[in-house]
Amino acid sequence: MTLPQIISKQAAGAAIDEVRRKSGLSWDAVSELIGRPPVWTAAAVLGMHALPPAEAERLGDALGLDAALVDALTRQPNRAAEADLSTDPTIYRFHELVQVYGPALKALIHDRFGDGIMSAINCSISLDRVAHPDGDRVVITIDGKFLPYAWVESGV
Amino acid sequence: MTLPQIISKQAAGAAIDEVRRKSGLSWDAVSELIGRPPVWTAAAVLGMHALPPAEAERLGDALGLDAALVDALTRQPNRAAEADLSTDPTIYRFHELVQVYGPALKALIHDRFGDGIMSAINCSISLDRVAHPDGDRVVITIDGKFLPYAWVESGV
Amino acid sequence: MTLPQIISKQAAGAAIDEVRRKSGLSWDAVSELIGRPPVWTAAAVLGMHALPPAEAERLGDALGLDAALVDALTRQPNRAAEADLSTDPTIYRFHELVQVYGPALKALIHDRFGDGIMSAINCSISLDRVAHPDGDRVVITIDGKFLPYAWVESGV
Amino acid sequence: MTLPQIISKQAAGAAIDEVRRKSGLSWDAVSELIGRPPVWTAAAVLGMHALPPAEAERLGDALGLDAALVDALTRQPNRAAEADLSTDPTIYRFHELVQVYGPALKALIHDRFGDGIMSAINCSISLDRVAHPDGDRVVITIDGKFLPYAWVESGV
Amino acid sequence: MTLPQIISKQAAGAAIDEVRRKSGLSWDAVSELIGRPPVWTAAAVLGMHALPPAEAERLGDALGLDAALVDALTRQPNRAAEADLSTDPTIYRFHELVQVYGPALKALIHDRFGDGIMSAINCSISLDRVAHPDGDRVVITIDGKFLPYAWVESGV
Amino acid sequence: MTLPQIISKQAAGAAIDEVRRKSGLSWDAVSELIGRPPVWTAAAVLGMHALPPAEAERLGDALGLDAALVDALTRQPNRAAEADLSTDPTIYRFHELVQVYGPALKALIHDRFGDGIMSAINCSISLDRVAHPDGDRVVITIDGKFLPYAWVESGV
Amino acid sequence: MTLPQIISKQAAGAAIDEVRRKSGLSWDAVSELIGRPPVWTAAAVLGMHALPPAEAERLGDALGLDAALVDALTRQPNRAAEADLSTDPTIYRFHELVQVYGPALKALIHDRFGDGIMSAINCSISLDRVAHPDGDRVVITIDGKFLPYAWVESGV
Amino acid sequence: MTLPQIISKQAAGAAIDEVRRKSGLSWDAVSELIGRPPVWTAAAVLGMHALPPAEAERLGDALGLDAALVDALTRQPNRAAEADLSTDPTIYRFHELVQVYGPALKALIHDRFGDGIMSAINCSISLDRVAHPDGDRVVITIDGKFLPYAWVESGV
Amino acid sequence: MTLPQIISKQAAGAAIDEVRRKSGLSWDAVSELIGRPPVWTAAAVLGMHALPPAEAERLGDALGLDAALVDALTRQPNRAAEADLSTDPTIYRFHELVQVYGPALKALIHDRFGDGIMSAINCSISLDRVAHPDGDRVVITIDGKFLPYAWVESGV
Amino acid sequence: MTLPQIISKQAAGAAIDEVRRKSGLSWDAVSELIGRPPVWTAAAVLGMHALPPAEAERLGDALGLDAALVDALTRQPNRAAEADLSTDPTIYRFHELVQVYGPALKALIHDRFGDGIMSAINCSISLDRVAHPDGDRVVITIDGKFLPYAWVESGV
Repeated sequence: MTLPQIISKQAAGAAIDEVRRKSGLSWDAVSELIGRPPVWTAAAVLGMHALPPAEAERLGDALGLDAALVDALTRQPNRAAEADLSTDPTIYRFHELVQVYGPALKALIHDRFGDGIMSAINCSISLDRVAHPDGDRVVITIDGKFLPYAWVESGV
Repeated sequence: MTLPQIISKQAAGAAIDEVRRKSGLSWDAVSELIGRPPVWTAAAVLGMHALPPAEAERLGDALGLDAALVDALTRQPNRAAEADLSTDPTIYRFHELVQVYGPALKALIHDRFGDGIMSAINCSISLDRVAHPDGDRVVITIDGKFLPYAWVESGV
Repeated sequence: MTLPQIISKQAAGAAIDEVRRKSGLSWDAVSELIGRPPVWTAAAVLGMHALPPAEAERLGDALGLDAALVDALTRQPNRAAEADLSTDPTIYRFHELVQVYGPALKALIHDRFGDGIMSAINCSISLDRVAHPDGDRVVITIDGKFLPYAWVESGV
Repeated sequence: MTLPQIISKQAAGAAIDEVRRKSGLSWDAVSELIGRPPVWTAAAVLGMHALPPAEAERLGDALGLDAALVDALTRQPNRAAEADLSTDPTIYRFHELVQVYGPALKALIHDRFGDGIMSAINCSISLDRVAHPDGDRVVITIDGKFLPYAWVESGV
Repeated sequence: MTLPQIISKQAAGAAIDEVRRKSGLSWDAVSELIGRPPVWTAAAVLGMHALPPAEAERLGDALGLDAALVDALTRQPNRAAEADLSTDPTIYRFHELVQVYGPALKALIHDRFGDGIMSAINCSISLDRVAHPDGDRVVITIDGKFLPYAWVESGV
Repeated sequence: MTLPQIISKQAAGAAIDEVRRKSGLSWDAVSELIGRPPVWTAAAVLGMHALPPAEAERLGDALGLDAALVDALTRQPNRAAEADLSTDPTIYRFHELVQVYGPALKALIHDRFGDGIMSAINCSISLDRVAHPDGDRVVITIDGKFLPYAWVESGV
Repeated sequence: MTLPQIISKQAAGAAIDEVRRKSGLSWDAVSELIGRPPVWTAAAVLGMHALPPAEAERLGDALGLDAALVDALTRQPNRAAEADLSTDPTIYRFHELVQVYGPALKALIHDRFGDGIMSAINCSISLDRVAHPDGDRVVITIDGKFLPYAWVESGV
Repeated sequence: MTLPQIISKQAAGAAIDEVRRKSGLSWDAVSELIGRPPVWTAAAVLGMHALPPAEAERLGDALGLDAALVDALTRQPNRAAEADLSTDPTIYRFHELVQVYGPALKALIHDRFGDGIMSAINCSISLDRVAHPDGDRVVITIDGKFLPYAWVESGV
Repeated sequence: MTLPQIISKQAAGAAIDEVRRKSGLSWDAVSELIGRPPVWTAAAVLGMHALPPAEAERLGDALGLDAALVDALTRQPNRAAEADLSTDPTIYRFHELVQVYGPALKALIHDRFGDGIMSAINCSISLDRVAHPDGDRVVITIDGKFLPYAWVESGV
Repeated sequence: MTLPQIISKQAAGAAIDEVRRKSGLSWDAVSELIGRPPVWTAAAVLGMHALPPAEAERLGDALGLDAALVDALTRQPNRAAEADLSTDPTIYRFHELVQVYGPALKALIHDRFGDGIMSAINCSISLDRVAHPDGDRVVITIDGKFLPYAWVESGV
């Protein structure tokens, strides 16, 4: 059989990350290279967004990536959860924050905006390092459109 | 049996929330009343933090709460997950963001800070409404201390 | 203790449904009574949406409901999943359709609209009975706004 | 060992999808090519239905598919759930709709048809793009035969 | 609050079963009393089907049931799974048979009928005791309509 | 390493099924070929029973199977559940029937036989196609020995 | 409502166990009192078997039990798993033994008896205290009938 | 890469079991060959204990095993659960016995020994075939040291 | 019904903890009061160990506890897991440490002691506060007997 | 494709452990070799921490490791849980201790330190063998920084 070579976006992401690490390129440098914000860039390379072909090729050139890896970067992702990743301590802390503060955030959204949600689709995220006398801080800003529950009919 | 009256912090939170709603007091007003940030305030009232007695009583006076409810506000919480809450659409979106962007956030933390986590304990969260021509936005800022993996021995 | 009377929205919904059944009022009649589409009406009464006070009272009058039930209808819902309900045969068939056709729907959405989702918040659903020689059919129309993945920053 | 070459229907579907993408053929074009509705077509190619040999070969010719892939298209599927797919954001929204509106749909079916279900087997689904001033909409129509609970004995 | 008295169908079933046992009435006698097949009868009384009011009253009279129990018998059931019941040894054996022989039954259905399912809605079940020299046997006959996968559109 | 060639019974079953399908042999024909009932035959070939060597070879000759596949047919099976298979729609309907009617079957067994179970080990299953004016029916007969709870001691 | 008083077998078991403890009666004494082996006796009282009325009354007299508790002892049990009990350290060790040695026991059963199981229905269990210089030992003997896989048809 | 050849203990166990079966050696014969009790022997070969090198080689010689398999027999095992194995009918019956009789065994241990457990580490298991007029029986003896809860401090 | 009053050990523990908090008695004071180590004391009061009657009464006197609570302290515990507690952030960190360091601890135990476990039954735990210039530290010492895997037969 | 060679940290850890075992090097010797505490060393080699390149090479030289293995030692780990490992008896005992004593440890931490957690990130663990007349003991010391819940804002 001569099936087309398909490497999963996630496996491709792990391979590219390894090349990136050895090349000494930081994620911020990759972000600049393709002209995208850092969180989006890392998410895309690790398999959660599709890069436009031009950006994928620019990254491929910079890192000397195989064509199959460049191609994987451009594919539409399946963004399904990988259950075990949620227990990595760095990632788990985010889920714990939602566990502890999720109902409070929901209460404030309903109080200030009305019944609805913060979109996870029309949304941007940034991560900053902020100096602090008691130890530097990770400041994550999640910026999503408010979507009110709306019973709209398209009038088909 | 004359067991001491114990109402769970969560049941107390639901009851107080209902009194609050009928009294017309917004969460922001409650926040001002006790002099605490809004997300912390809502989390505490809903059962995830303990209020100092003075603040609990100030809130109890304002809302005309029963002593058992005021007392519940001051108890040390068990902050365990209530599994089903995580599927409420407003709360689920936050977990989905961690699913989609968690590995990217982890990559950036390791790149900019080194191996470690953002603390979920030494951490504050704010939620703002920001006007935007395409629809107002929910802006959540998570601000946690970076904790590097450190193999410290106390020298007992 | 004289805690405020709180009946959960779901328990209230079950109680109202039972009164409704005995009163002989169909869901369509309830829908007309409060001037809302049938699927929204049933969802709201069963606990998944909040009725405005005026509509809740109109329904309370028609069915002779207790004030606590009318009040429950107006509360902000927690829309979390009740796991076991998903195995009721009538409801399970919908989940099975998503299992079998979900990847195909995702493929078509991405093909015709681009990378994104159909909103479950800005969305209406109708259910019709359509006569057919081989047996009448249930026709469900789900009509949701397309939301493209968009990395918008509010410029705080 | 010279075991017969067996590629799973799902792996075959992923491979064909990739060839399709690179060939520039939309799912609608594939649908026309084999003369089947779009949702059925995408579901079948991705592994949830069996294509008749003639249709499988027509598709194979158009895309230049290997014989093993053409053969996989004709096999009887196992339609079991792949658990993680249900958390992809595009697919998850459908499950969330069933979570929020499932009991309402069940109530209306029982009210308008009697005790029974909408068949997930005798069922068709279409997906349309409908223009709307506030943003185009995804309109999904699920059209399934009503099956009343019936205690039929075949009189063996 | 004077909420309408609602006893769940399942709790009602357990209570009626206990009255039945003490009255000395076998399930076969109950089946004859209401003129329904035994498996359907036991399923309905235990909460999985609704009895028509006349049958519910006939049963109520025979067992001296409270009006609330008679009423519960007539309500539309939620037929969701109770997870733990599936581990009762008598019930578990049925699930184990599906585990061991399910793929074989699926293969034979597809071979003899084509692609489709045996309906669990248009279906009857009987249970017989058959004498056998090595020990009497439980013979269960499941008799369900074959439903072929059919992509029918109602032509709305 | 020259480890002995071991193909799992299940992988072997899938491979043999594919050869069978292409050879045009129905499961009934395989059943006749080895002189075993159809459900047992399909279950055994798909990996849930061991075939005696003579029967395995007769089948291997008829289908032109590799020795490794013939050998796999004769191995003692591990009959453990494959979780996802239980969600295939054709198989799921059987589990749903146990969910809906399991407690009723248990009640009737206890009523007619006493406290005990229907054996899933001393048990046969047949599947028939029965013509019916409203559509042919799948009739499955499960025929298992009744086993009363018995506290027997072997007197070691 | 005047529903018949129903206390679950398990709640009844916990209540009787508490009376037993305070009365100073050991489980062995209860076993002798009703003339049944100790493991069966404890299992029955705790809710896993039904006591014949005469034995239930003898126990009720000895412990001064309420009629509702005596009655509960005579009801047919639902023997479903209580998930959390399996993590009690004393009970967990038994599950761990099955985890570690289950495949070995299966291998030996198949080797010495042929393909089949040890019955969990036609089975007795005893527990003995055996003195040993390194610490007394718990010796549990499980004595179950071998049941060979047998495809028996009752010839209905 | 020339990584050291590592075959998992479990895969090694399955391969050795297959060689053993074809060689006609029973588990009892293997047990005698290495001078270990049968249950321990089967558990060790299937991957749950480490064989001392001398015993592993004696077995390797008798069965003509590859060096990699002999080596795997001597490695320290990970004894973690394989979830699906617990649903094999022969193994499941043991878990079911713990489900039904676990609380009774716990009650008797506490009654006869005090608060504690039967060790699953200092423990031996034997399996015997005992003739019985109603069918031979599997008699399993579990013989574990009683461990009382003891709050011992080593006085570091 | 006049069932004996039974309050679960856990509910009793929560009630006693609340009395303790209001009385101003620290856990260390309770520990001294009954003459037991602090971790054991807190575990016992919260429901995981049984207090001897004399200690339970001393505690009951000091706190003015109801007889039912004193009695609950003396009952044999069921030590089963409460699943949700494991997600409380303070408790979760301990599980995370086992996740991250468990395999390393297992490797060192096997290296230094041989194949076996650290007993969770013959085990003591202490918790100390140790001053440290960068912030005080929690030092937990777990001190358990090593138990080698030993195939001991009691020679019944 | 010439993808960069990537071996997972865990697979690398298993391979190195096997080389280590055959080389006769104890974990303590490895610990000395790289100048790190034993628990940290074993955790790092088994995949839970990254070794600095110099240490990785020193270990690679001592054991004659392939470059790919040495490289794997230096990669940033994903520390996610491997679910099944938690049921290995040696590791499970640690989880059981948290189950039984976790709430007590939480109570003491809150009593002696205030509301907060013991850090699992700023934390060291040691394991010692301590002689004891009744059998040597495993003494594990967990030494983590106390982190009080603190609502710190970085003042961005």
